[in-house]
Amino acid sequence: MNSVADAGLELLFRRKLAPGSDGENIYTLCNELLSTLGEASGTAIARKVIVAYEAMDAEARCVFFEKLRRDFNVDAKTVLDAANAYAAQSDDASLAKLIRAVEPPRQELFRRLNMAPNGTESLVRMRRDLLETLRDKPELKAVDADLRHLFASWFNRGFLALRRIDWETPAAVLEKLIEYETVHEMRGWDDLRRRLAPDRRCFAFFHSALPNDPLVFVEVALVKGISGEIGPIISLDRVESDPASADTAIFYSINNCHEGLRGITFGNFLIKQVVLELAREFPQLKTYATLSPVPGFRHWLSGASKPGADPELLTDAEIETLVLLGDSDWSADATKAEALQPLLTRLIAHYLLHEKRGSEPLDPVARFHLRNGARLDRINWLGDCSLERMRQSAGFLVNYVYDLKSIERNHEDYVKNHMVVASSAVTRLAQRKGK
Amino acid sequence: MNSVADAGLELLFRRKLAPGSDGENIYTLCNELLSTLGEASGTAIARKVIVAYEAMDAEARCVFFEKLRRDFNVDAKTVLDAANAYAAQSDDASLAKLIRAVEPPRQELFRRLNMAPNGTESLVRMRRDLLETLRDKPELKAVDADLRHLFASWFNRGFLALRRIDWETPAAVLEKLIEYETVHEMRGWDDLRRRLAPDRRCFAFFHSALPNDPLVFVEVALVKGISGEIGPIISLDRVESDPASADTAIFYSINNCHEGLRGITFGNFLIKQVVLELAREFPQLKTYATLSPVPGFRHWLSGASKPGADPELLTDAEIETLVLLGDSDWSADATKAEALQPLLTRLIAHYLLHEKRGSEPLDPVARFHLRNGARLDRINWLGDCSLERMRQSAGFLVNYVYDLKSIERNHEDYVKNHMVVASSAVTRLAQRKGK
Amino acid sequence: MNSVADAGLELLFRRKLAPGSDGENIYTLCNELLSTLGEASGTAIARKVIVAYEAMDAEARCVFFEKLRRDFNVDAKTVLDAANAYAAQSDDASLAKLIRAVEPPRQELFRRLNMAPNGTESLVRMRRDLLETLRDKPELKAVDADLRHLFASWFNRGFLALRRIDWETPAAVLEKLIEYETVHEMRGWDDLRRRLAPDRRCFAFFHSALPNDPLVFVEVALVKGISGEIGPIISLDRVESDPASADTAIFYSINNCHEGLRGITFGNFLIKQVVLELAREFPQLKTYATLSPVPGFRHWLSGASKPGADPELLTDAEIETLVLLGDSDWSADATKAEALQPLLTRLIAHYLLHEKRGSEPLDPVARFHLRNGARLDRINWLGDCSLERMRQSAGFLVNYVYDLKSIERNHEDYVKNHMVVASSAVTRLAQRKGK
Amino acid sequence: MNSVADAGLELLFRRKLAPGSDGENIYTLCNELLSTLGEASGTAIARKVIVAYEAMDAEARCVFFEKLRRDFNVDAKTVLDAANAYAAQSDDASLAKLIRAVEPPRQELFRRLNMAPNGTESLVRMRRDLLETLRDKPELKAVDADLRHLFASWFNRGFLALRRIDWETPAAVLEKLIEYETVHEMRGWDDLRRRLAPDRRCFAFFHSALPNDPLVFVEVALVKGISGEIGPIISLDRVESDPASADTAIFYSINNCHEGLRGITFGNFLIKQVVLELAREFPQLKTYATLSPVPGFRHWLSGASKPGADPELLTDAEIETLVLLGDSDWSADATKAEALQPLLTRLIAHYLLHEKRGSEPLDPVARFHLRNGARLDRINWLGDCSLERMRQSAGFLVNYVYDLKSIERNHEDYVKNHMVVASSAVTRLAQRKGK
Repeated sequence: MNSVADAGLELLFRRKLAPGSDGENIYTLCNELLSTLGEASGTAIARKVIVAYEAMDAEARCVFFEKLRRDFNVDAKTVLDAANAYAAQSDDASLAKLIRAVEPPRQELFRRLNMAPNGTESLVRMRRDLLETLRDKPELKAVDADLRHLFASWFNRGFLALRRIDWETPAAVLEKLIEYETVHEMRGWDDLRRRLAPDRRCFAFFHSALPNDPLVFVEVALVKGISGEIGPIISLDRVESDPASADTAIFYSINNCHEGLRGITFGNFLIKQVVLELAREFPQLKTYATLSPVPGFRHWLSGASKPGADPELLTDAEIETLVLLGDSDWSADATKAEALQPLLTRLIAHYLLHEKRGSEPLDPVARFHLRNGARLDRINWLGDCSLERMRQSAGFLVNYVYDLKSIERNHEDYVKNHMVVASSAVTRLAQRKGK
Repeated sequence: MNSVADAGLELLFRRKLAPGSDGENIYTLCNELLSTLGEASGTAIARKVIVAYEAMDAEARCVFFEKLRRDFNVDAKTVLDAANAYAAQSDDASLAKLIRAVEPPRQELFRRLNMAPNGTESLVRMRRDLLETLRDKPELKAVDADLRHLFASWFNRGFLALRRIDWETPAAVLEKLIEYETVHEMRGWDDLRRRLAPDRRCFAFFHSALPNDPLVFVEVALVKGISGEIGPIISLDRVESDPASADTAIFYSINNCHEGLRGITFGNFLIKQVVLELAREFPQLKTYATLSPVPGFRHWLSGASKPGADPELLTDAEIETLVLLGDSDWSADATKAEALQPLLTRLIAHYLLHEKRGSEPLDPVARFHLRNGARLDRINWLGDCSLERMRQSAGFLVNYVYDLKSIERNHEDYVKNHMVVASSAVTRLAQRKGK
Repeated sequence: MNSVADAGLELLFRRKLAPGSDGENIYTLCNELLSTLGEASGTAIARKVIVAYEAMDAEARCVFFEKLRRDFNVDAKTVLDAANAYAAQSDDASLAKLIRAVEPPRQELFRRLNMAPNGTESLVRMRRDLLETLRDKPELKAVDADLRHLFASWFNRGFLALRRIDWETPAAVLEKLIEYETVHEMRGWDDLRRRLAPDRRCFAFFHSALPNDPLVFVEVALVKGISGEIGPIISLDRVESDPASADTAIFYSINNCHEGLRGITFGNFLIKQVVLELAREFPQLKTYATLSPVPGFRHWLSGASKPGADPELLTDAEIETLVLLGDSDWSADATKAEALQPLLTRLIAHYLLHEKRGSEPLDPVARFHLRNGARLDRINWLGDCSLERMRQSAGFLVNYVYDLKSIERNHEDYVKNHMVVASSAVTRLAQRKGK
Repeated sequence: MNSVADAGLELLFRRKLAPGSDGENIYTLCNELLSTLGEASGTAIARKVIVAYEAMDAEARCVFFEKLRRDFNVDAKTVLDAANAYAAQSDDASLAKLIRAVEPPRQELFRRLNMAPNGTESLVRMRRDLLETLRDKPELKAVDADLRHLFASWFNRGFLALRRIDWETPAAVLEKLIEYETVHEMRGWDDLRRRLAPDRRCFAFFHSALPNDPLVFVEVALVKGISGEIGPIISLDRVESDPASADTAIFYSINNCHEGLRGITFGNFLIKQVVLELAREFPQLKTYATLSPVPGFRHWLSGASKPGADPELLTDAEIETLVLLGDSDWSADATKAEALQPLLTRLIAHYLLHEKRGSEPLDPVARFHLRNGARLDRINWLGDCSLERMRQSAGFLVNYVYDLKSIERNHEDYVKNHMVVASSAVTRLAQRKGK
């Protein structure tokens, strides 16, 4: 496709697309793209900028981002003048001028780059690079603000299409799932196929500018009763069940696909729309629940269990018991596991209910589902004994329940009153016995 | 679809969607949508706002727009403070604050309304209403600025898909063409069918949020030599020709479809991409030309030929001759037509080449094609004797040629040097004989 | 498409496709197609035969069919020998030989013609011509037997796909509906659109070899209660109703589309599958009924009411009353209509229940639905006052009800016991009052 | 889908679909299907027969086939009578009767079974079973003749659709390729993906009744010059090349997919249509050649090299040399390979050119391509060192060239004159040096 487009464009504009040969460089091109020339040959120039950008190494890209920050920034004097004019007379006209003055030219540059073939895809990758660079160069946040502003507008919920993914889906999409699944890694095509079996569902949001590339996807198992363990769900030799006899939908894996879209959340919309889809297809479903990791538990625990820890939370004897976690195989040792279970269970319940970052839970997955209006329903001992999960959460998995009737109220309670909505079972677990 | 969605949403949120009954009104809903509640139930609330809006009459809508202008505007004090802070210290942080301060909340409101089912479509219709209201209430321009800003971003070229339209296209799309064609009105389905015959092409841009609704479309006739008359092209009993023997593509009708997208131009991209498509399908094509109206000619002429007109342009005798135009049937009267032809031809050439609005041609169609890089190539006497065209341009049609090799240069000459690129034949026509 | 195929085929085989120029004629081509040459270049030769056939006039086609009958027939001697061999020894081998001997070569010729681009379509048209020719040349039945045998196999129910037709369907298909609708003629695109409205359904069978051309289609109105009149259903200014509130599906028009497929029935499968589709989409539907014409009633009546008619059926006074039918406007004259109603109603009930052709009803539409297992449910006075219907059935329409629970039993009763299953209301109507 | 259909059908006909429970057996069902009942409830009964058949084990199926042979056969007396009647008077009417008499009822049974959901697929599987059973029960050929007759008609070229297969194809189709590829086995999805890369093409024929299941497919490599080795083509770490620079298309693997369609050839049509497709996409291609195995070579050789072999073909010394083949690793031993190369090369050329089965080449792949009109162009020493190929053909691969200009002539020479069209290079190889 592109080579045809190139040929056409070169034909059309009698210019070589390969940059550099005639002394053109990416900055000249960016300036051309923003000039009136961009109007006539915008697609061609945008393409050249993208090609030039993608040929750069990390260092050159860093320089490029720096240039965007400084040379494609607002003009401070113009902003000042507009600000002062607005201060003098605060009317629509002076505001309009101020609005124009504060938009950095790089924002329009990004809009015009989007005209290139696969422009959106390229910009999403560019932001991924930028976010990486940004760790060492926090001043680039200003550049990121523009990309993020655009993405939030472009990837508006109204522009996303929910599509079911199954074995009829093109391989070009399916292989992306294999690549993007990081919660419970896929072990090749056979694993994928099993996750798309008739007693499973997989849904993703797509945007028309990335037609073969999901933005976020969720994997669902149709089962009887709430699952507490991941093993039986993703086992390669599990027996398929009849979806018509299921009463529960378990959302066991939700994956954001593009690092470059970080901060542009789709997951909350996805879960709710998938609940509606499933309710339509399987009216007999009674419960919609996740089976979720608790990624921050052990990191928090290692801090909380240090010498000098809060004695209300942990007695010295308990701190001692936690040393058992040092054995990487503790879960396979019945004695150790037995000793740890009640203690860890109380601690993870405490962690989820009471540990905060600001007014929200410390755990990021908890923040996500609780903010969405879900209820923390159950804590599952050794729900996932994979290395990764043992390391993160001592093998715990938890269920957040999406109850159609209370989603909105829960959300309000969470947002307005900082409440963590939880089942009484979980609440009890957080209490020290005898208290 | 919607009734299912409604049922689902009502089920999901246990709230009636029909607004008003419980004292809810559209302003309460708009505020809810902007609040944290909007996060949990954004789609449902957005839908209620749209339903409420669409139930309003013109007067109520005018009030609604007024409210958007005043109550969903920036906070003047916050803007002032941010402006002053920036004046005091012009750094990224203060700029970021200023940027946030100057974005009116209604812009975010529009973004959230876009989440409703068919939200984009509703917003496009809303802007159509707004533009109409705006004629009497110029202060609403501030509201329009926000919608227009969003649309320019959302309908970025990178999000438009070119689709060929033919007899295999769903009727739901085809009937839109009949509705939207205003340059050369369609006389029903038979006329449409003829315009989609094998020796014709029709292309449109579509946006994924309006899947069955074109944004702009162009009708093309594949012919031998440049056409000067519209009659043979749209005649209901024309004989189809073999497209393989054509050497010229005539773009005889370009229509923007949505009043609510006024100012968001797609036409220039469309023409160029269609040229590429046609070049691929028919490598033997040599010329790409429009057959275009001159909508402003007679309006200008009626001013220019008033008593006291410029004697360099019009002698008294010539002004006398122009009186013949008063007979609405003049073109059917050989004597009158003969008397008028040389005079009108010179005048329309003059009008197109020399009459300006600012530095650009007075005629809007001329502005469009010349800005795109086309060349004014030919002036056709009595190219279209329809009432409308006689009234607008004394029956003249003109050809603008899109020459692949000079589009970019022409565009630059037009934009930078205010040049009207025209063939020498047209240039000569503008000169008074004997001069 | 075809011109590309031609170019390719000519390139491939270095032969001109246009027949005749080099002395080739259609018979030579048919023989080539049946020879080993047909294996290598079958598609190309088949196309040439079709092109040559379609260039023929009616007379030449008649000669062609004659040739097929005589020159592409079985070899009588071979058949005799094989028959005798089988008589001598009736085993599998001799039967296989006999089977081969009795298949006329034209059957294989038709199979190979089917390889041409759009071959199936061409053969269906060829059979239409043949059936027309056959009226004067009954000996051509032998040729028709071969085409019909093939079509019965090719258009097996297993190869038909049910597709819903609505306003999203390509115009190329929709215009076929307008063309093929003969029961209640369509008055252009607006009429069509109304028949595809949300409270209507239209379904058709398609075959993959005629992808844009339905084989048979049915139009359904979703209404409350069984309709007795066609007027309100096809009225151009009817008000749409909410399909969710309907309790009855009225099959008001069933059309076979291709004369060339006469005798290959699809209609029975279509109705039953559409009942299943509707039951799935609208579980609340209680009744599935047709609104059908009685095409043979007046033709029969004009015979039955001649002087010397059966006095059990018609008294002299009644025969006198029937003279009123001579006034083509009788239905508009209340006195006449009143006089005719009880008499005609009894007669049409009698006609449908008791008049036979062999052991089946005389009326063809009655034969079709009763054989399918429907029940004759209701007779509607002046259900359709169109000229055509007045002429055929004195304006009567009848309802056949498809009752899921008794279709199979009704069918058996009809086929095995020659029973006309009818409601008691209809049965009573057939009885003379006082008897 | 099926469960919905079942529910619908059970609802519709108030009968249980599961066979057997009420004493129904498959033979009763088959008779019902052929009776008038089949008309009303054909789809449901056909489905029950299929379900019952698929529940049978191999032995029961054998009994079933036997029953089909005997109890669903022609009526010998009716055939005899019809044969005698035809002998007495050979006219159209008596022939029609005879034709009807000789068609075994099982043929109509198969036609009606085809009405079941996925009926065609089931019948293709049934024939696979039958062909297997037939090895021990040759008398079942009579049953097979009916299935084969139907399949030849149903899978007519005119009903096949060529579809390109690439990475956009649904996984459900792609996994079939992995399963069906037997010439050069696929090593999983990565191998498959590589075979669908931009410098590769894959095309298949599909039938509408098996929409996700190819009938035959061909894999093509776009390369420079004719390939003599399979290794570089299917290597997992080959480097992709630019298809625009290729001058040769190598058809390196052609696979028939369904054992149940044995004898219904599609391959010849496929190759020719793919040549046309490739010529359209890549006008620069000059050569279309296969890279083919010689499956029968060593089998023939082991007979031909026995003591007492033809001394014209093999001297005693040469027979001695052939003993080296006993070492399964001979190709890795330079001395042995060197000793064998000239001898084996002559022998394989001789085998392909001169060894016959009847008037056609002994080698089945040679028969296929030569009959299609290809030319035996090149013989490649150690073109494929896989175990399978070493065992079949001592590692040889050969190229058959499809030359557009001579396909038809070659085909005629082959069919009429039994000529093996070969390049002079191959012809020379078959000659003993010094002769």
